[in-house]
Amino acid sequence: VADSKTTVSILGASGYTGGELLRILLQHPGVEVVGATSQQFAGEFLHKAHPNLRGRTQLKFVARNELPAADVVFTCVPHGAGMAAVPPLLERGSRVVDLSADFRLRDAATYQEWYGVPHAAPDLLSKAVYGLPEIHREAIRGARLVSGVGCTATATNLALYPLAKAGLLTTGPVVADIKIGSSASGMDATVASIHAERSRTIRLYAPTGHRHVAEVDQVLRLAGSTAPVHYSAHAVELVRGILATCHVFLSRPDVTEKDLWKAYRAAYGTEPFVRLVKERSGLHRFPDPKLVAGSNYADVGFELEEGTNRAVAVCAIDNLVKGAAGSAVQCMNLMLGLDETAGLMQIPLHPV
Amino acid sequence: VADSKTTVSILGASGYTGGELLRILLQHPGVEVVGATSQQFAGEFLHKAHPNLRGRTQLKFVARNELPAADVVFTCVPHGAGMAAVPPLLERGSRVVDLSADFRLRDAATYQEWYGVPHAAPDLLSKAVYGLPEIHREAIRGARLVSGVGCTATATNLALYPLAKAGLLTTGPVVADIKIGSSASGMDATVASIHAERSRTIRLYAPTGHRHVAEVDQVLRLAGSTAPVHYSAHAVELVRGILATCHVFLSRPDVTEKDLWKAYRAAYGTEPFVRLVKERSGLHRFPDPKLVAGSNYADVGFELEEGTNRAVAVCAIDNLVKGAAGSAVQCMNLMLGLDETAGLMQIPLHPV
Amino acid sequence: VADSKTTVSILGASGYTGGELLRILLQHPGVEVVGATSQQFAGEFLHKAHPNLRGRTQLKFVARNELPAADVVFTCVPHGAGMAAVPPLLERGSRVVDLSADFRLRDAATYQEWYGVPHAAPDLLSKAVYGLPEIHREAIRGARLVSGVGCTATATNLALYPLAKAGLLTTGPVVADIKIGSSASGMDATVASIHAERSRTIRLYAPTGHRHVAEVDQVLRLAGSTAPVHYSAHAVELVRGILATCHVFLSRPDVTEKDLWKAYRAAYGTEPFVRLVKERSGLHRFPDPKLVAGSNYADVGFELEEGTNRAVAVCAIDNLVKGAAGSAVQCMNLMLGLDETAGLMQIPLHPV
Amino acid sequence: VADSKTTVSILGASGYTGGELLRILLQHPGVEVVGATSQQFAGEFLHKAHPNLRGRTQLKFVARNELPAADVVFTCVPHGAGMAAVPPLLERGSRVVDLSADFRLRDAATYQEWYGVPHAAPDLLSKAVYGLPEIHREAIRGARLVSGVGCTATATNLALYPLAKAGLLTTGPVVADIKIGSSASGMDATVASIHAERSRTIRLYAPTGHRHVAEVDQVLRLAGSTAPVHYSAHAVELVRGILATCHVFLSRPDVTEKDLWKAYRAAYGTEPFVRLVKERSGLHRFPDPKLVAGSNYADVGFELEEGTNRAVAVCAIDNLVKGAAGSAVQCMNLMLGLDETAGLMQIPLHPV
Repeated sequence: VADSKTTVSILGASGYTGGELLRILLQHPGVEVVGATSQQFAGEFLHKAHPNLRGRTQLKFVARNELPAADVVFTCVPHGAGMAAVPPLLERGSRVVDLSADFRLRDAATYQEWYGVPHAAPDLLSKAVYGLPEIHREAIRGARLVSGVGCTATATNLALYPLAKAGLLTTGPVVADIKIGSSASGMDATVASIHAERSRTIRLYAPTGHRHVAEVDQVLRLAGSTAPVHYSAHAVELVRGILATCHVFLSRPDVTEKDLWKAYRAAYGTEPFVRLVKERSGLHRFPDPKLVAGSNYADVGFELEEGTNRAVAVCAIDNLVKGAAGSAVQCMNLMLGLDETAGLMQIPLHPV
Repeated sequence: VADSKTTVSILGASGYTGGELLRILLQHPGVEVVGATSQQFAGEFLHKAHPNLRGRTQLKFVARNELPAADVVFTCVPHGAGMAAVPPLLERGSRVVDLSADFRLRDAATYQEWYGVPHAAPDLLSKAVYGLPEIHREAIRGARLVSGVGCTATATNLALYPLAKAGLLTTGPVVADIKIGSSASGMDATVASIHAERSRTIRLYAPTGHRHVAEVDQVLRLAGSTAPVHYSAHAVELVRGILATCHVFLSRPDVTEKDLWKAYRAAYGTEPFVRLVKERSGLHRFPDPKLVAGSNYADVGFELEEGTNRAVAVCAIDNLVKGAAGSAVQCMNLMLGLDETAGLMQIPLHPV
Repeated sequence: VADSKTTVSILGASGYTGGELLRILLQHPGVEVVGATSQQFAGEFLHKAHPNLRGRTQLKFVARNELPAADVVFTCVPHGAGMAAVPPLLERGSRVVDLSADFRLRDAATYQEWYGVPHAAPDLLSKAVYGLPEIHREAIRGARLVSGVGCTATATNLALYPLAKAGLLTTGPVVADIKIGSSASGMDATVASIHAERSRTIRLYAPTGHRHVAEVDQVLRLAGSTAPVHYSAHAVELVRGILATCHVFLSRPDVTEKDLWKAYRAAYGTEPFVRLVKERSGLHRFPDPKLVAGSNYADVGFELEEGTNRAVAVCAIDNLVKGAAGSAVQCMNLMLGLDETAGLMQIPLHPV
Repeated sequence: VADSKTTVSILGASGYTGGELLRILLQHPGVEVVGATSQQFAGEFLHKAHPNLRGRTQLKFVARNELPAADVVFTCVPHGAGMAAVPPLLERGSRVVDLSADFRLRDAATYQEWYGVPHAAPDLLSKAVYGLPEIHREAIRGARLVSGVGCTATATNLALYPLAKAGLLTTGPVVADIKIGSSASGMDATVASIHAERSRTIRLYAPTGHRHVAEVDQVLRLAGSTAPVHYSAHAVELVRGILATCHVFLSRPDVTEKDLWKAYRAAYGTEPFVRLVKERSGLHRFPDPKLVAGSNYADVGFELEEGTNRAVAVCAIDNLVKGAAGSAVQCMNLMLGLDETAGLMQIPLHPV
C-alpha cells in the first residue's frame, strides 16, 4: 500500500453494489482498495464475480474474518445485517459507509415500522448521517458513519427537494411513479428475476407501501414540506436506471415556470452531479436514465401543466451509481476531505 | 368471395394498425378481406409489408382508387385524413370503422382545441360512436360509423371507468401515468424512433398535454365523474403494450377493498375481454402488458393504499389489439350482429 | 368431457413447454385437456403458473398420481425422467409424446455418450419415432410413442435437410451457428438466467459439444449426408426464438441458386409449416425468429456465396412452438388422424 | 487553449462515432478539443446531439468551413467522403485519423471492387496506415494519416490474427459469424432501424458479401494466412457491441489447447487492450460484448473441438470504442508519442 493513499475495503463485495464500488474505487486517484470479502468467492480473483474488472487488479476475495483494516469500509450487506456489521468496524477506527438500509432512517420506531424488526444499534442512528451530499453535505464531512441511500428514494428526493425547500409543496398530494431496472434486485435468482419473466415486463411490484417512501418523507420534512407522499414502483425493461416521475400539486395556483427554474437553480446551481434537463425541442428534452448510464449524474427536470396547479418533477439516475456506489464514494470523498468529485467524473455512455 | 361472408377492406393497410387488422381479419371466421390499399406497396403481396402474413393470403395491395366496395371498411389514415376519407365510404353504403383520431370526440370545438384544425365533417360527429364496446356497446350495434380509440385513452378509461361509475371519483385529482411501447409510433422513421435511441429509454415524451386526455375526459364525464384528469406519458422499452397506472384520490375516506371489487365486478363482470387481475401472492399480481401480448384482453387491477384515500387503478393492453385493431374488430362484430368475440379469442403469449 | 373429443393430459405442465402446450391445446378444436400436473402448483388454477391462460379454463393443476387417463399424454419432464415416466403411460393405453430428450436418439449407446447415463428403456427406442413431421410424417402417423425434438436441432435440421437430401452435403464441413432466446432455459432460476446477466448478452455457452448435434447427425445421415456437423450455440437477447445460421460447403462447385431453390422446394413445397423466405429486396429478406413468434412456422432461406462453393442456409423458429409444443401437437394430430394443422394455424405477431 | 496540450478537432462530429470521440477526448489528459463540425447542429451546444456530454463542455458545433486548425483531426464522414476531406487537412499540416472506410485498404483496385467507385486519392493509400495498433503499432507511430478500422473486421482480425501468425490457418476455410448492435448503423433513420423492427431481430443482413471481409483478408495475408475467409453478419438486439464467432479448421490435426494458448499469448501477451477470456467454469467463460461496453477492451477467447481440427475463436468489442473511436484515439496517442493508453482506461460497465 502506498503511504500516501487512503485505504478502503468492502464488506460484501460480490454483489452488484460491491462490484460498482470496486469499478469506481479501482479508478479513484486518492484511495487504494485493500480488501473485498465474499463468502461464495473467497480465494478467487475479483473478476470471477465482476468480469468487467478482468485485467485491472490482482486482488482476490477474502473471507469476512480476513478483511484487512482500512481507513474506510463500505458495508454492502442485506438489510438487517448492516446494524450488526457496522459497530465493530467503527470500534476498529474505520470510517464506515453502510449501504444496507439500516442507518438511513433517523428514528428507530420508523425503522421498525418499515423493516419489521427492532433496530439493534439505535444509539448509532443519531450519529449516522444520511448519505445524500446534495442535502447533507456538511454533516457528511464530519461523520464517521454515513448511510447509503435508497435508490428510488434518491431519484424522488432529488426531483422534489427544490420544490419543498421553496415552499411549493405545502398542500399536496405528491405521487411518485417509479420505473426501475433489474440490477436494483441484485443477483438474487428467483423466477421473478429470470430473463424470460423480467424482460419487457412493466411489473407494478409495489402499487403502494414501498419502504423507500420513509426516506422521502424524512428528506422532505427537513425541507419543510408537509405534503403526503404516495409511491408506486414498477420494474421495467432496463438493467441500470431509475426514473422517478413525480406528480405534484403546487401550493399556489400562480406558480410560473420561472419560479420553478428559480427553485431548481437555487437548490442545484453549484452541484457537481445534478444537471437540469429541460429543453424546448429535440429528442432529449427531459431526464432519461438511458442518458446517465455509468455515471454519477442525477438529471433533474420539470414541467408545469398549463391552466392547473400541477407540475411534473422528474429525476433520472443510474441506480448502481448515484443511487448506491457513486453517492457512497462521493460521501467518502467528503469524509476524507478529498475533492468531492474524485473518481466520479466519468461521462455517461450514449447510446447504450 | 363466398356468398355467405361479409366483405371487409382496409384503407391504409401497410402500417402496423393495418397489419394487425389483417392478421385478425384473415383468421376471422365470418368475414372475407377483399381489399387493402397502400401507396408505397401497391401491386405487392401483403407480406412485403407484413412478413408475418407470408403464406396466408395471395392478396396484393392496391392503390386507393382501386379499393373494392365492401360491407365494412376500416380506415387507417393519419389524424386529419379520416374526416375526408370517411364520408364517401358511407355514401357508398359501407359501414366504417375509422382508426384515425377524427371521430373520437363528440364535440367539434374540443376536436379543434386538441388537434389544431377545424373539423371537416362536424355533422358526422353526432352520428359517430366512440368505439369502446365496454362503454358504448348498444350504440355501436346500431352505428354505421364507429371511431377507433386512442390506445393510451383505452387503458386509462378501462382502469377508471368503474370508479367513475360507482361515484368514487367526484373530487380528484386523477393522475394517469402511461408507459407505452414503440409500435404505437407506427413505422415513422425518425431519430426518435431508431433502435439506438428508442431502446431502453424511459422517455417522458408528454409530461403534460397529451391529446388522449380528451377521450378520457369524455368517457369519465359520461360516467358522472367531475375529477380533473392529469396525464403523463413515457415511451419505454417495449414494442407492444401499454400500462396505465392511474393514481386516484377517492371521494370517500372509508372506501374498502370490497367496495372496489364491487365496482369493478359491476362494470366488467360479463365483459369477454376484460380480466380482473389482483392476486395476493405470486409473480403476476397485477396487470402487465407482457401478459396480454397479441390478444384483445384488457387486464385491469387496483390497490387501496392503507390509511389514505388513495387508490391505484391499473390497466394493461396490447396497444395494437385492444388499443386499436382488436377493439375495431370487436366493434365490427357488434355492427354486423356477429358473435362479439369472433376472431378475437387468441390467447396471449407467455413468456414473450 | 364431450364424447366426441379426444382427451389429452400433460405430465409436468407448469414449465414453459407445458404452458405452451396448454395455450395451443386449449384452443384446439379437436381435443379436450383433462389433466395437467405440477408438484409446485397442485391445487392451483393453471393461470397461477401461466398468467396468459387466465379466464380460459377452470382446470387446476393436480399431483402426478392424480393425473386422469387420457388418449394422449404429453410428458414434459427433465432429461432422464422421460424414460421412467413413459412406459407406464403406454401400458395404460395412452399414446405419448415425450418432450424430454430421452426418446430422440435411436441408439442407446449414442444416448449414453451424450447424456452420460445408460438408457433405462432401450427397447422403446426402436419403437419411438423422432417427432419432426417434415422428416418422419408417415412413421409418426402410426406411432404410439413420439419424441419431441431438440429446439436448436430442429432449426438446424430444417435448414440443412433439403441440401442433404439433394446430395449437396457430401464433403463438408457444416457449421451451425445457433442463436437462442431465454425461454429455452425454462424457469430455472440461476445467476446465468437473471435479467441483469442474461439481458443483452451474446453468451457463447457452447462453442463446441452441444448435445443437439446428435439429433442433427441422425437426421442428416438418414438423408444421405456424411458431412461432419459442427455446432456453436449462443444465448442472445430474445425470449422466444432460434436462428440457426448454417455455413455449408457444397459438394459441387457449380451449384446454382436455381439448384438450391429446387432442393428446398422439393423438400418443403407442400409443407404446411415451412415457409421459404428469400427476397431480393426489402427489410425481411431472410428468416428471422422475430417474424415467427407465437406460430408453428419454420422460416427457411439460403444464399450462395458468389465465386465459392459456400452457401448459408438458415432457419428461424419459435423454440417453444415449432421447437417444442407446436411440433408435438402436430405429431399428435398425425397420430390421431386429425387435420395436421388443427390448432396450429395462428399467424405470428409482427412487430413484437 | 493551454500551451502544453495538443489540439484536436473532429470533422463530422454529430454522429455516434463523433460523439464517442468527444466522450473520450473530453476526458483525455493530453489533448484539448478545439472544434467539432456538424451541418445540422452548427451553432448549438455539443449536448444537443450528444446528451451525455451535458455539463462537460461549453463548445458548440461549427460549420465545416469554420473548423479551427488542430494538431490532429479526426474525420468522421461517410464512405467516399473521406478521400476528399483528408488531403487538404494533411496539407494544412494536421495529422489525420480518418474514420471513413476510404483509407483502410492498401490497394486502389480492391477499394473499387468493394466500394464501387474509383479511389480519389490513390497516392495516399500507400502512406496511410491501417489503424489497428495490435497489428501495425510501429507504422502508426510514424504516420501522418491513419485509417480507422471496420468494426466487424476488428473483432474478426483480433480473433484470428494469432492463429494466422502461428501458421495454424493455412488450409481453411474460416467462417466469421458476426453479431452486431444497432449503434453501428449510426443515426440513419430508416424503417430498418426503427425500434419496432430492429428490436429483438436476428436479421441476417449480409449472409455473404460484407465489405469488411476485405480488411480481414488484408490483415490475415500479412500474417501469412492463405485461408479463404467467409463472412456472415447479423443485426441483433444490442446497441453497443460485436461478437465475432470465427469457425476455423486448423492446419494440423494435432493442435492442442496449449498450442492455442501459446499462439494467443505470443500475440497479445503485452497488449494493453486485449484480454484473453477462457474460463473452465462460471458464467463468463468466453468473451461477451456485454462485458466490454464502454471500454476499449477487446476480449478474445477460443475453444478446440474435441476430436476434430476445428476451433472456435471469438472476440468481443464495443463497436463504438475498440471498433471505432477508441482504436482511433489509441492511434492518436501513438502518433503523438503519448502514453498509448491515455484516456482509454475506462473499466467497462457490468451489468449493463
